[in-house]
Amino acid sequence: MSEAVRISEIFGPTIQGEGPLIGRPTVFVRTAGCDYRCRWCDTLYAVLPEHRHEWVLMTPSDIVAQVNKLTGDQPILVSLSGGNPALQPLDSIITLGRCSGHSFALETQGSASQPWFANLDWLILSPKPPSSGMTTDWAALDACVKAAGARPRCALKIVIFDEVDYTYARTVASRYPELTAYLQVGNPAPLEVSGSALPEAADFGDLMGRLRWLAARTVEDRWFEVTVLPQLHVLAWGNRRGV
Amino acid sequence: MSEAVRISEIFGPTIQGEGPLIGRPTVFVRTAGCDYRCRWCDTLYAVLPEHRHEWVLMTPSDIVAQVNKLTGDQPILVSLSGGNPALQPLDSIITLGRCSGHSFALETQGSASQPWFANLDWLILSPKPPSSGMTTDWAALDACVKAAGARPRCALKIVIFDEVDYTYARTVASRYPELTAYLQVGNPAPLEVSGSALPEAADFGDLMGRLRWLAARTVEDRWFEVTVLPQLHVLAWGNRRGV
Repeated sequence: MSEAVRISEIFGPTIQGEGPLIGRPTVFVRTAGCDYRCRWCDTLYAVLPEHRHEWVLMTPSDIVAQVNKLTGDQPILVSLSGGNPALQPLDSIITLGRCSGHSFALETQGSASQPWFANLDWLILSPKPPSSGMTTDWAALDACVKAAGARPRCALKIVIFDEVDYTYARTVASRYPELTAYLQVGNPAPLEVSGSALPEAADFGDLMGRLRWLAARTVEDRWFEVTVLPQLHVLAWGNRRGV
Repeated sequence: MSEAVRISEIFGPTIQGEGPLIGRPTVFVRTAGCDYRCRWCDTLYAVLPEHRHEWVLMTPSDIVAQVNKLTGDQPILVSLSGGNPALQPLDSIITLGRCSGHSFALETQGSASQPWFANLDWLILSPKPPSSGMTTDWAALDACVKAAGARPRCALKIVIFDEVDYTYARTVASRYPELTAYLQVGNPAPLEVSGSALPEAADFGDLMGRLRWLAARTVEDRWFEVTVLPQLHVLAWGNRRGV
């Protein structure tokens, strides 16, 4: 029997707004529950226990059926997100989803590893910088890289708000030189709360200023192996979901 | 003796704003001269003969020395652009540049192939859609893919202004199913002319509207293997060069 998975939302197809798969059509499967409480978390509705009544337990086959319904049974990239999706039993979703031709990317802060990471197509490790208020468990992050093994493409994605975050990103990247590193411009405006209409629009000028700063900072440092990106969905849609 | 190369500009390090290498620090080597005259060309200063007096003939070793000077002798991704860089003898630049640790991406419309395409790390073929006013020579494009062979990662990047361009992109992508396709939001505002200060800022709202349309269009079509991207440098810097 496959274990049920705690789901916050399943939506799409939309365009992935972040990281190595930026611009790719995808369906998001957002699990509920998180071991972190990042200061600037933009999906608190998938994190805080007071939103528990909005979460649903779904079987892997119901989840894959929902993805198939959204895509009209066409294969797509499925983005497993959270919350922290590594806290949920997602192996059956991956196995079942492959039968429908889907591929799978998972993004996690790297605080918990799972043997089924090895079945992913992409593992995007997003350890949280000091501005989050969280502390990195390096042994846990090491274990995630190890659990991934050879199959998934494994990348680092680090949110940068300030110079301290940038220094942290350099430390992370130098610890894992075999992983491609992506720096993501931090967005200081919380985007939406569950069920609400769109909040105030993202501050375009502020976000582009942050992108310019981050690009200039990496170039000044001659850090040329990194990739610097904004959050596309915030720029284009002003929300978490896009399209 | 290596042949001299006609250069419009060498600049960077900056951030690649487009296509499969979006967000990557890079130095641009922009060659001069083009066999196309796209209606919406944003680098006419590297295309039109009346700008010939701004172009310089440089030897491959001088070009690589200039790149090394810009990067402080650190290896970087070099973006070979134009004009149409496939019209120039760039093989010695690639060979020499590798000795300094650089990697090489070339972007061309695919109207002329070269045996040295096989030495690139990335070949980005950007056949021009109907809105450009140009007509695709399919045999020439086929020859480019063939010339690339096994080494470079080969991708398609197609600029989209409207539904006709979108239909063209679908045709191109289905002709080359083995290549990853990138759709790029067209920018109707010419960005700058050589030597001038920045012109009026890009129309953010318009560009984001175009991105939303293009994303929705691909999703509606269930075209899930494509990647949809804006021009990052236009959004962040409002110019061709970035940083």
